[in-house]
Amino acid sequence: MKAEIITIGDELLNGSTQNTNATWIADQMWRIGIPAQFITVIGDNADAIRDALARSLSRVNIVLLTGGLGPTHDDITKKSVADFFDSELVENKDLRVRIEQRFADRGVPMPLVNLEQALVPEEAKLLPNELGTAASFYFERNNQLCFVMPGVPAEMQQTMQDAVLPLLKQKYAGQTGSIVYQTIRTTGIFESSLFETLSPLNEITQLVNLAFLPHRAGVDLRLGAHAAKTKEAQEKITAAVEIILRKTSQFVYEIGERTLEQVIAELLLQKQFTISVAESCTGGLIGNLLTNIPGSSNYFCGGVIAYANSVKQQLLGVQEKTLNQYGAVSAETAQGMLWGLKGIFNSDCALAITGIAGPTGGTAEKPVGTVFIGSLVKGDMQICKFIFHRERLINKHRFAYAALNLLRQKLLE
Amino acid sequence: MKAEIITIGDELLNGSTQNTNATWIADQMWRIGIPAQFITVIGDNADAIRDALARSLSRVNIVLLTGGLGPTHDDITKKSVADFFDSELVENKDLRVRIEQRFADRGVPMPLVNLEQALVPEEAKLLPNELGTAASFYFERNNQLCFVMPGVPAEMQQTMQDAVLPLLKQKYAGQTGSIVYQTIRTTGIFESSLFETLSPLNEITQLVNLAFLPHRAGVDLRLGAHAAKTKEAQEKITAAVEIILRKTSQFVYEIGERTLEQVIAELLLQKQFTISVAESCTGGLIGNLLTNIPGSSNYFCGGVIAYANSVKQQLLGVQEKTLNQYGAVSAETAQGMLWGLKGIFNSDCALAITGIAGPTGGTAEKPVGTVFIGSLVKGDMQICKFIFHRERLINKHRFAYAALNLLRQKLLE
Repeated sequence: MKAEIITIGDELLNGSTQNTNATWIADQMWRIGIPAQFITVIGDNADAIRDALARSLSRVNIVLLTGGLGPTHDDITKKSVADFFDSELVENKDLRVRIEQRFADRGVPMPLVNLEQALVPEEAKLLPNELGTAASFYFERNNQLCFVMPGVPAEMQQTMQDAVLPLLKQKYAGQTGSIVYQTIRTTGIFESSLFETLSPLNEITQLVNLAFLPHRAGVDLRLGAHAAKTKEAQEKITAAVEIILRKTSQFVYEIGERTLEQVIAELLLQKQFTISVAESCTGGLIGNLLTNIPGSSNYFCGGVIAYANSVKQQLLGVQEKTLNQYGAVSAETAQGMLWGLKGIFNSDCALAITGIAGPTGGTAEKPVGTVFIGSLVKGDMQICKFIFHRERLINKHRFAYAALNLLRQKLLE
Repeated sequence: MKAEIITIGDELLNGSTQNTNATWIADQMWRIGIPAQFITVIGDNADAIRDALARSLSRVNIVLLTGGLGPTHDDITKKSVADFFDSELVENKDLRVRIEQRFADRGVPMPLVNLEQALVPEEAKLLPNELGTAASFYFERNNQLCFVMPGVPAEMQQTMQDAVLPLLKQKYAGQTGSIVYQTIRTTGIFESSLFETLSPLNEITQLVNLAFLPHRAGVDLRLGAHAAKTKEAQEKITAAVEIILRKTSQFVYEIGERTLEQVIAELLLQKQFTISVAESCTGGLIGNLLTNIPGSSNYFCGGVIAYANSVKQQLLGVQEKTLNQYGAVSAETAQGMLWGLKGIFNSDCALAITGIAGPTGGTAEKPVGTVFIGSLVKGDMQICKFIFHRERLINKHRFAYAALNLLRQKLLE
């Protein structure tokens, strides 16, 4: 099985938008054992769309096409694909009702241009798009599949997950050989150090493909094993995971796909613990991360964004003499913030964070990147100091994830 | 002039690496008036490289190719390109000396495999690569140019800036004309409504290229004008901006590149106003956005993440009967949160937000996506209700940016 990804949009060709859709689809296709052979990017241009489709169908079995399905003038994908397949655009009643309903739900009059979104090529099959109004659909011809999806990432992703990937997995079951993959998620260690800790890599790479994927929360290791049978591939993965854990277990927060926030959410729910946060330098980021998880009201009480020192004093009761003697960025202040939280929220767990995100505010003694993080889990308090990076946004994320990781470790004790 | 970007690497096709090189090159080419018509991504595979080159040279004047020039086994780009152009690989003395020198400078013995990096196709011209050991080069045939550069972003970028872009600008001086671009950033309006508000578009698109770029904070309009001279292109932009503002000014928060957070930061600094926030459903996101701006301590005091109702009561003094009578998600609660903030922080401005981000918690009367936002600017209070989307993370962002936009509008009054 061979696949090609075609992404359409002038914004991809003029450099104003990163082509994250192509990468996301490529990753998903790799995971189901049908790796993309080609990624093609073209503009909102009927000729280019036709040429790209013709070429794709001459060299692959599966075409995944996104972009240009919105209601605006440069969105000509649907018409061009329909023309290519000699299929007329006709109104799909269900789709029209759904689109009208979406606007009615919001109490907003529907712009007429949205009616065009209810048109679908006559011979295409409709795909679900729960999040948007653009029609997703696919053609099946000569045992080749051509999927057409919106360019809005959330809509495309949901369509892929709900419909395209299940369909492909079913259709090609048994034909793709087996790929088993496994993600190991680490935090608190730099990519180069992780690399060095795992070296020599041969021991691992003779079993699996190994990719280092750094992101805001840490570094993911992605392992992929190919074999004729799933069981065989799975055994390679198991052996490789064992080697990796032997060398790096203290940095691993997840063997799988859960985010650090999700891991913590599940630990809190298991233990029926509640949590509150006091944030200085992160300005609300930890609260934001914790509340990204649906159902977070079951454990997250709230917090205080104690950015100014006066807030640390007034709301959290940090003593003025603590601030004067040790500074706002100190273990003592972090501790004071924790006790303040405890007094207000009386939650089972509490996190307090105070640091210097930069670019200004650093001193020789406390450079930019310095942070003190306090955690309190059922009366068990810990204050840690870290020194991270020089860049503000990177620091804010490193700080927040370091705090979450401290909490995770305490919750596991 | 037409250009195509070819990026080579299995890591781009299996989704483990974002193709930032293609986006970077596309942006640079657009800026010098030679926009890319196509971006093609292929694997480390000799046949694919040959096919892609043949196709590129059949449809564009300039090919920009990166990736697969490193010393590892899967890097076969150089050999494949040399074969395509029927050119033999020969050792380049200068390059060999430079590579040996680089290892000598580091006091590291040179792995033999690096000697292969001194090989260059005989008929190609060498391009500088100050940062690495991979050879960059280009072919010129039949008035077409084919540039071959390393995939390491820093090396590719330096080669482009030092050699490729100057060469192209010189070669095509006078032929590319001038491109001027301008971004107009909007928020609080959906892409389709913005499109309709601006329609008929001919008035605008006869002056400029117009792209709609939706993102988390709103929809950007990107205008590009081509003309023989810069002054002429600039005049087209000015005329188009005027038309757009006439139709949509209430949604425009920036003519330029600043984010909504930056716009607000500058407004607050100008007026020497301080701000505090009370966040329920956004869980700290607004505070996080405001503190992403360096120097935010000059205006941001802090906030209360009032996620649980008890926090709304205890810390913000929202009355129990308000919560019981109107609900936590209500104009009355938002107002109570505002007064609470005022009492605690006494800041010049305050934002309070309470809503239902989803996926659960909605009712017929208050569906998921409902939010009440209160703003207080120097005693002038406003409470607005919005109904947005059904997806939690999208809602959190819509809510936060709607709040920031309300604040912006008040600050401009």
